[in-house]
Amino acid sequence: MADAIDLNSDLGERFGAWRLGDDEAVLDVVTSANVACGFHAGDPVTMLRTCERATSRGVTVGAHPGHRDLVGFGRRALAVEPDVLHAETLHQLGALGAAARVAGTRVAYVKPHGALYHQCAAEPALAESLVAAARAFDDGLVILGPAGSALLRAAREAGLPTAAEAFADRAYDADGGLVPRGRAGAVIDDPAAVGERAVALATTGRVRDVHGDEVAIAAESVCVHGDTPGAVGLARAVRRALEGAGVRIAPFAGGGR
Amino acid sequence: MADAIDLNSDLGERFGAWRLGDDEAVLDVVTSANVACGFHAGDPVTMLRTCERATSRGVTVGAHPGHRDLVGFGRRALAVEPDVLHAETLHQLGALGAAARVAGTRVAYVKPHGALYHQCAAEPALAESLVAAARAFDDGLVILGPAGSALLRAAREAGLPTAAEAFADRAYDADGGLVPRGRAGAVIDDPAAVGERAVALATTGRVRDVHGDEVAIAAESVCVHGDTPGAVGLARAVRRALEGAGVRIAPFAGGGR
Amino acid sequence: MADAIDLNSDLGERFGAWRLGDDEAVLDVVTSANVACGFHAGDPVTMLRTCERATSRGVTVGAHPGHRDLVGFGRRALAVEPDVLHAETLHQLGALGAAARVAGTRVAYVKPHGALYHQCAAEPALAESLVAAARAFDDGLVILGPAGSALLRAAREAGLPTAAEAFADRAYDADGGLVPRGRAGAVIDDPAAVGERAVALATTGRVRDVHGDEVAIAAESVCVHGDTPGAVGLARAVRRALEGAGVRIAPFAGGGR
Amino acid sequence: MADAIDLNSDLGERFGAWRLGDDEAVLDVVTSANVACGFHAGDPVTMLRTCERATSRGVTVGAHPGHRDLVGFGRRALAVEPDVLHAETLHQLGALGAAARVAGTRVAYVKPHGALYHQCAAEPALAESLVAAARAFDDGLVILGPAGSALLRAAREAGLPTAAEAFADRAYDADGGLVPRGRAGAVIDDPAAVGERAVALATTGRVRDVHGDEVAIAAESVCVHGDTPGAVGLARAVRRALEGAGVRIAPFAGGGR
Repeated sequence: MADAIDLNSDLGERFGAWRLGDDEAVLDVVTSANVACGFHAGDPVTMLRTCERATSRGVTVGAHPGHRDLVGFGRRALAVEPDVLHAETLHQLGALGAAARVAGTRVAYVKPHGALYHQCAAEPALAESLVAAARAFDDGLVILGPAGSALLRAAREAGLPTAAEAFADRAYDADGGLVPRGRAGAVIDDPAAVGERAVALATTGRVRDVHGDEVAIAAESVCVHGDTPGAVGLARAVRRALEGAGVRIAPFAGGGR
Repeated sequence: MADAIDLNSDLGERFGAWRLGDDEAVLDVVTSANVACGFHAGDPVTMLRTCERATSRGVTVGAHPGHRDLVGFGRRALAVEPDVLHAETLHQLGALGAAARVAGTRVAYVKPHGALYHQCAAEPALAESLVAAARAFDDGLVILGPAGSALLRAAREAGLPTAAEAFADRAYDADGGLVPRGRAGAVIDDPAAVGERAVALATTGRVRDVHGDEVAIAAESVCVHGDTPGAVGLARAVRRALEGAGVRIAPFAGGGR
Repeated sequence: MADAIDLNSDLGERFGAWRLGDDEAVLDVVTSANVACGFHAGDPVTMLRTCERATSRGVTVGAHPGHRDLVGFGRRALAVEPDVLHAETLHQLGALGAAARVAGTRVAYVKPHGALYHQCAAEPALAESLVAAARAFDDGLVILGPAGSALLRAAREAGLPTAAEAFADRAYDADGGLVPRGRAGAVIDDPAAVGERAVALATTGRVRDVHGDEVAIAAESVCVHGDTPGAVGLARAVRRALEGAGVRIAPFAGGGR
Repeated sequence: MADAIDLNSDLGERFGAWRLGDDEAVLDVVTSANVACGFHAGDPVTMLRTCERATSRGVTVGAHPGHRDLVGFGRRALAVEPDVLHAETLHQLGALGAAARVAGTRVAYVKPHGALYHQCAAEPALAESLVAAARAFDDGLVILGPAGSALLRAAREAGLPTAAEAFADRAYDADGGLVPRGRAGAVIDDPAAVGERAVALATTGRVRDVHGDEVAIAAESVCVHGDTPGAVGLARAVRRALEGAGVRIAPFAGGGR
C-alpha cells in the first residue's frame, strides 16, 4: 500500500464561450489536475487560467492530451497513426508546458483522455508512441493510467515513473477490468458506497468486484469527476471518506518547478 | 550596417495531406525558418519534421504564430483580444518549442504571420501582448518585424532583442512603408532587380523607393518566399546576388540549444 | 405599427458536449428561432434537433450564419472577403435548410450572428454579399436586422422582404443607434422596465432614449436572450408584458413548408 | 452489361490556400464529380466553384461526404455514432445542394469518402444511417459504392437507386474484394494495363484477379484519380482505352435540375 492516495480529475475543459464542469469546486477536492490541452477541449486562455488556479491551490498539473476531435470531445476512437500521435502528444505537452511555466509550475504527469486513454491502454504501438513523446519532452514525467495496461507497461519499459489509477464509482470484474458502462451495476452513484470503496482502494488495494468477491486493484490515484453537480457531490464524498478514515491525500507527482 | 544579413522565409505550411511551398528548396537558401505553429498552418508532424530539416541544415528555427484561421491561412484581420493573443502566442511557442527541442534545437525568434504581423506592426496593445508572451516563454527570444513598427518598439520596451526585416521584392514609399499590394509597381518580380535591391539593403541600408529616390530601410534580415516556383527562383536570385557582392549571409539569432 | 410583434432569440448554440443557453425555456417564449449553422456554434445533430423542437412548438426557423470562428463564438470582427461570405452564407443556409426540411419546416429568414451582424449592418459590400446568397438560396427569405442598416437596405434593393428588430433591454441613442455596451446605462436589466419598453416598441414604435427623450425605433421583432438564467427571466418578462398589454405575438415570417 | 460506363473522381479537395489535385484536368476526363463537402476537405468557395466547373462541362455532381477530420483528410477510421453520421450526412448534402443549385445543377448521387467509405461498406448500422439521410434529403439520390457492400444493400432496402463502382488500377482477390494496398501487386500503375482492365470491366463485367483468374466485378462506374500527375495520366489512359474500344462513356445519374 502507498502511504497516501492521490485524487485526480479532468479540468480545463472549456472551449471559448462554452463551459463544462465546475473547475473551482473540483480544485478544492483533488490533488492532481488533468488539464485538457486544446485538441479535444481547452482553448489557450483556459489552459493558462487552469494552470494558474491549480498552482494557487497547490494542485499538481498534469497533461491530458486527446484526439483532435472537438465535436466528439475526444471520446470517439480514431485510427491515429503512431507517428502522428507522437507529434500530437509532443505538441500538446509543449503547449501546456508553456502555460504551466508561466503559471509558476510544471507539467508533472500525463494521462491520455477519453478514447485515446482506452486506445493507449490496449494498443502497445500507441502506448509506446505516447510514452516516447512524453519522455522526449521530459524524462521525469509520470505516466498515469490503469494498472495492467499497455500504457503503464510501455512507460516502465521506457524508464518513466508510473502511477496506477482506479475508479471508486465504477464496478470491476473479477479480473480487475472495468464493467462496461452499458451493463447493469457498472456505475455506482451512492456517495456512501463510493466513499467506502475509495477507502478500501487506498487502504487495502482491494475492492468488492461486481460479484461481491474481493479483487486486487492497484491505485496510487483515484479518479473523480466534476462535470455534473452530482459528480462534484461524489468527489466530495470520496474526499470526506478518505479523510474520515485517516488516509493521507497527496499528489503522486510533485508540481514544483 | 550589420556585417552580415539574414535570409528568412515562412516554412512548415503544410496541413495534413495539403502541401504548400517547396520547403526543401527554400531551406537551401535561407538562414532562418519561420515555422508555422498550427493555428493558420502546420500540423504537429509538419512542425516536428520542419524543425528536424532546419536543424540538419543549420538553419535557425523561429516561431511564426498566426491567427486561429486555417481556412483563411491567417491572412484575414481578426479582432483578437490582447489576453487571448497572449495565451495563443504562448501556446504556439510552447508547441513549437517542444518540437524544436526534440529536433535538437530551440526556438530562437518570433515573427508573427500574415494579418497578425500587420496588426502587431500597427496596434501597440497587440504588439505588447505578443511580446509579453514571448518574454514569458524565453526572455532571450528575438522579435523579428518591420523597422519602425509598434512590434519592435514593444520588444525594445520589454527588453527583448529585435531584428528588422525588409523585402527585396516589394516597393517602398518615401516614408519607408510598403507600397500596398494593389498599387502599380508594388511587387517586383525581376530576379536581377530583386537581387540588386537585396544587396543595396544589406550593404547600404538604403534602397530606391517607388519614386526612384533613396530611402533608408533598416534590415538585419531579408524575407524571401517559397510558395511558388517563381518565388523559389527569386529567393535563389537574392542569395546569389548577396554572395556575388561578398555579403556574409548568417542568421541574426543563434539556434544552439 | 404592425398589428403584431415577433420575439426572436438565438438558439441551437451547442457544440458537441458543450451546451449554451436553455433552449427549451426560450422556445416557450419566442416565435422565431435564430438557429446557429455550424460555423460559430451548432453541430449537425444540434441543428437538426433544434429545428425539430422549434417545429413541434410552432416556432419559425431562421438561419443564424456566423463567422467561421468556434473559439471566438463568431463574436470577433473578421475581415471576410465578400465572395467568401457569399459562399459561406450559402453553405450555412443549405446545411440548415436540409435539417429544417427533415424536421418538417423550412428556413424562413436570415439574421447574421455576432460580429457578422455588426459588419453587415455597417458594410454595404458584405451586406450585399450575404443578401445575394440568401436570394440565390430562396428569394422568399426575409432578412432580419436593425432598422436603418446597410443589411436591410441591401435586402430591399435585392427585392427581399425585411423585418426590423429592436432590443428591449438595450439603451438607444437619440439617433436610434444602440448605446455601446461599455457605456453607463447601455444594458437594462430590470424586468419591469424591459417589459415596458417592449410594449412601447410594439405599440408605438417609440421608446425613451438614453437621455429620456422619445426616439422612433422600427420593430417587427424584439430580440430576447436565453444564455443565462437572468436572460430567460427577462425574456419571460417581455412576453408577459406584451400579453398583458394585449399585443398579439406572432412570427413575422411563416414557417410552413 | 450496362450499355455505357461512367467515370468518377474525387474533386473539390482544396481547403482555403491549400490545393490538392488538378481538378481542371480531371473534369475533362470524368462524367461524375464526387465533390468534397467541407468536413474532410472543400471550403465553401471551392464547393461552389467545383459545382460551377462541373456544370459548365456537363459533368454530373455527386456529394462526397466524409468524417469531420481535416488534418486526417477523412482517411482515418472514426467511431462515429449512427445518429451523428445521419445529421452530418444531411448537413453535407444540404451545403453541397445549395452550391449545386446556385451553379445550375443538383446533387445527383452520394459516395462516402475515405474511411467513411470503408466503414459504410462494412458496417450496416452506418450504411443505413447514411442512406436514411440521403433519402430524407432527396429520395432520387443514387448511392455509389462497391458492389456487394453493406452500403449498396442498405440503399436497395431503402428503395434508393444504386450504382456499383470498380477500380481499374487496383487488383482484386478471387472473391471480388480489393487486395489491400500493402500487399504486392495491389496497385497497378501501367497505363496500358489499367486501360485494358477498364475496358474489360465495362464490356464484360469481368477482370483478371490477382491470381490471373477471371472474377466478376459489377461496375456502372470506374473510379479514377487526379491527385498526382501520374494519376491524371492514368485517368486519361482509361478514357482513351474505353473510347478506343467503342465503349460509351456517360454518367449513371442525370444532373439536370
